[in-house]
Amino acid sequence: MKKIILSVLLFAAILSIKSQEIKYTDASELNLIGKPFPDTPNPYHRIDTLVFKGFNTTENRQVRCPVGMSVLFKSNTTKITMSTNWGYVYNTVSTMPIAFRGYDLYFKNERGEWQYAASGANRNYQEGKEDTFTLIENMDGTAHDFMLYLPMYSEIHTCKIGIDNDAYIEPIESNFRHRIAVYGSSFTQGVSTTRAGMSWPMQFMRHTGLQIVSIAASGRCMMQPYYTTVLEELETDAFIFDTFSNPDAALIRERLLPFIDRLIKAHPNKPLIFQRTIYREKRNLDRVVDERETAKAEAVEEIFHELKNGKEKERFNDVYLITPNASDNHETSVDGIHPNDYGYSLWSRSIEEPVMQILAKYGIR
Amino acid sequence: MKKIILSVLLFAAILSIKSQEIKYTDASELNLIGKPFPDTPNPYHRIDTLVFKGFNTTENRQVRCPVGMSVLFKSNTTKITMSTNWGYVYNTVSTMPIAFRGYDLYFKNERGEWQYAASGANRNYQEGKEDTFTLIENMDGTAHDFMLYLPMYSEIHTCKIGIDNDAYIEPIESNFRHRIAVYGSSFTQGVSTTRAGMSWPMQFMRHTGLQIVSIAASGRCMMQPYYTTVLEELETDAFIFDTFSNPDAALIRERLLPFIDRLIKAHPNKPLIFQRTIYREKRNLDRVVDERETAKAEAVEEIFHELKNGKEKERFNDVYLITPNASDNHETSVDGIHPNDYGYSLWSRSIEEPVMQILAKYGIR
Repeated sequence: MKKIILSVLLFAAILSIKSQEIKYTDASELNLIGKPFPDTPNPYHRIDTLVFKGFNTTENRQVRCPVGMSVLFKSNTTKITMSTNWGYVYNTVSTMPIAFRGYDLYFKNERGEWQYAASGANRNYQEGKEDTFTLIENMDGTAHDFMLYLPMYSEIHTCKIGIDNDAYIEPIESNFRHRIAVYGSSFTQGVSTTRAGMSWPMQFMRHTGLQIVSIAASGRCMMQPYYTTVLEELETDAFIFDTFSNPDAALIRERLLPFIDRLIKAHPNKPLIFQRTIYREKRNLDRVVDERETAKAEAVEEIFHELKNGKEKERFNDVYLITPNASDNHETSVDGIHPNDYGYSLWSRSIEEPVMQILAKYGIR
Repeated sequence: MKKIILSVLLFAAILSIKSQEIKYTDASELNLIGKPFPDTPNPYHRIDTLVFKGFNTTENRQVRCPVGMSVLFKSNTTKITMSTNWGYVYNTVSTMPIAFRGYDLYFKNERGEWQYAASGANRNYQEGKEDTFTLIENMDGTAHDFMLYLPMYSEIHTCKIGIDNDAYIEPIESNFRHRIAVYGSSFTQGVSTTRAGMSWPMQFMRHTGLQIVSIAASGRCMMQPYYTTVLEELETDAFIFDTFSNPDAALIRERLLPFIDRLIKAHPNKPLIFQRTIYREKRNLDRVVDERETAKAEAVEEIFHELKNGKEKERFNDVYLITPNASDNHETSVDGIHPNDYGYSLWSRSIEEPVMQILAKYGIR
C-alpha cells in the first residue's frame, strides 16, 4: 500500500514538474510580418547584407536589426518566456532597453483590436549568454491571438518563445493589409521610444491596419545610392519617407532629385510620400542646430516648389510632401532631438489622414 | 618685428584656450528647490538618514536621491557642462538613463514659462569616476534663467555646473509658491519617465506654479510608521498621496487609519489628498495582478466610505480622495505597471483641477 501511495505521489510530482517545464518555439516558425525581404538567411534580418553591398559598419548592424518586425501567433499558454541569442546589442542613454533589446506583446481584444499585454527586457542580461526572462504570466489558459514586436535596435540570432509544456502555439494569419515601406532616420526606427511598438510607423500600422515594412536607418537615412538600390528592389505598394532628418541642406540638394528619379523608374505609378522633418527641441537655444534645420527646410521647400510647379511637374505626379507633427507644447522631447512615445503618437496621428487620402487614390485602403 | 608677431599670436592663442576653459560652480551654491528638509549634510539628499532611522537599504538609497529637486540659476554662458561624482547609481531596463542618472534643463521663455532646453546623460559613464558631459552648447551668450532637474534615481556627492570661463552664473529666486509634499510609490518618483522633469509631480509643479517636495519611495510607499515620522516632521502646506499603489489590501486595511491619525495630529487643518491607484496594464491578461488590484481598490473604497460617513466624519474633514487618470486607450504603459511620459502628463492634468479646488479652500493658490 505504502509503495502505491509513494508511486502516486512520485507520479503527481513528475506531472507537476512537467507542467512547469517550458516548451520553446522559434519565432521564425510562426508568422513573421513587417519583413522587407522575405528570404534572408537569418529570418530576423531586414536585409541580406551579402546581397546588398555598400553599407558601412553602422548600417550593416542596423539592417540586421528586426525593427518593424513582429510575430503573429495563437496560444493558450498561461506564461510566456523569451529566450534570445543576440548578435550586435545596442546601448544608449536615451532609449529604453525594453525597446532596443526587449519584447513588446499585444493581444487581440474582444473588439478585434491589438491591445497592449506586456513588455520587458532582461535586467540582468549578460553579453554572449542566452538571454531568458519571463514576459508575462498568470494568464487564464484560454487561447489568445498575440502580436510580439521584436527588438528595435539589436540583432537576433535565435528568438524562442517559451510556453507551458501542455499548451499549444501556432502561427495565425496577418490582418494587416498591403505593404507600405518606410525609409527614414532614427525617428522612423523609433529611437527614444520605451518599447518597440511605439515608433510612429508601428503606431500607424496598428491604427490604419496597413502593414509597414521598415528600412529605417538611424542617423544614416541620407538617400545614399546603395540604400536606394535596396528601395528599388523592395516589393511594396507605397513609400513613406523621412529623408530630411539626417542629411544637411547641401546633401538634400545633391541627392533628392536623383533619389526620386530612381524610385519613379523602379516603382512607376506608386505613391512616394515625403515628410518634412519634425521640430527639434534643441533649436530652442542651440543656434547651430537652429540654422542647420532652417537651411534644410528651405532646401526642401525650394526643391519641391520646382518639382511640383516646374516644366516636368507631371513626371512627379506621384510624389507628395506632407507635414508631420510630433510636438505638444515643447514637452515631448527625450533628448532635444527625438520625441517620446507621446510625440511619436502625435506624429502617427498627424499623418494618418493625409497619407490615407493619398493612398486611397491608388486603391490602397 | 617677428618677435612681436609671435608674441601677439601666442597671446591670442592663450586667450582662445582660456575662453574655452570651463568654470565650475557646485549646484548647491545656487538655488536648490524642491528639498524636503533644508539642512541635510549632503545638500542633494532628500532626507538625512542619520536623523531619520528605520529605513532599509533600498529606502536609505532612495531618500538620498535628489528626485523632485532642481537648481535655479541665471547665466550668460554659451555652453553648459555637467560634472558629477555619483554615490549609488540605479540601473533598470524600464527608465531612461537620462532620467535616473542624467540632467534635464529648462529655460524661462519670453512668456515667463519654463520651456524645455536640453537633457542628457553620459553614455560612457564609468563607475567611480567623475562623470563629465556637455548638456547644451551653441547658445547665443545672452543671459537666461535656467531650471535644472537633478537625476531622479541616483545619489549625488558633487554636482558641478560648468560654464564658459568668461561667463557668469548666479542663483535666482524661485517663482514656485508654497510647499506641497507628495508621498508615493515609483509612480510618484517617476519611474519609466524619459527625463527627471516628466514625473507627474514635476509636470504638476510646472503647470500650477506650486512647489512640490517629494518623499516618493519606489516600491516602498507603504505607510510604514518610520516613514510617517518623516512626514510628521516635514514643513509643508498640504499633502498629495499615492499610498495605494505599493501595499496590498491587508496592509492598506492595517495601516491607513493609523497613518491618517498621525498626520492629522502632526499637521492639523492641512489638506491630506489621497489618490486612488492608477490602472495597471498588466491587469489586461495577468489574473493575479488583476485580483490584487481589485482587492486593494475595494479596501480603499470601504475605508473611505466609513471615514467620510461614519461617526467621526468631522475628524476627517481635511482628508480627500481623488482619482487620477494616466491612460489613453491602453497605449501609455512602458512595462505593464508604469506610465510613459504621456501617461504621467495625463495623470498630472487629471488631478490639477480637483487638487487646486481643494487647495483653494486653504488659501493655497
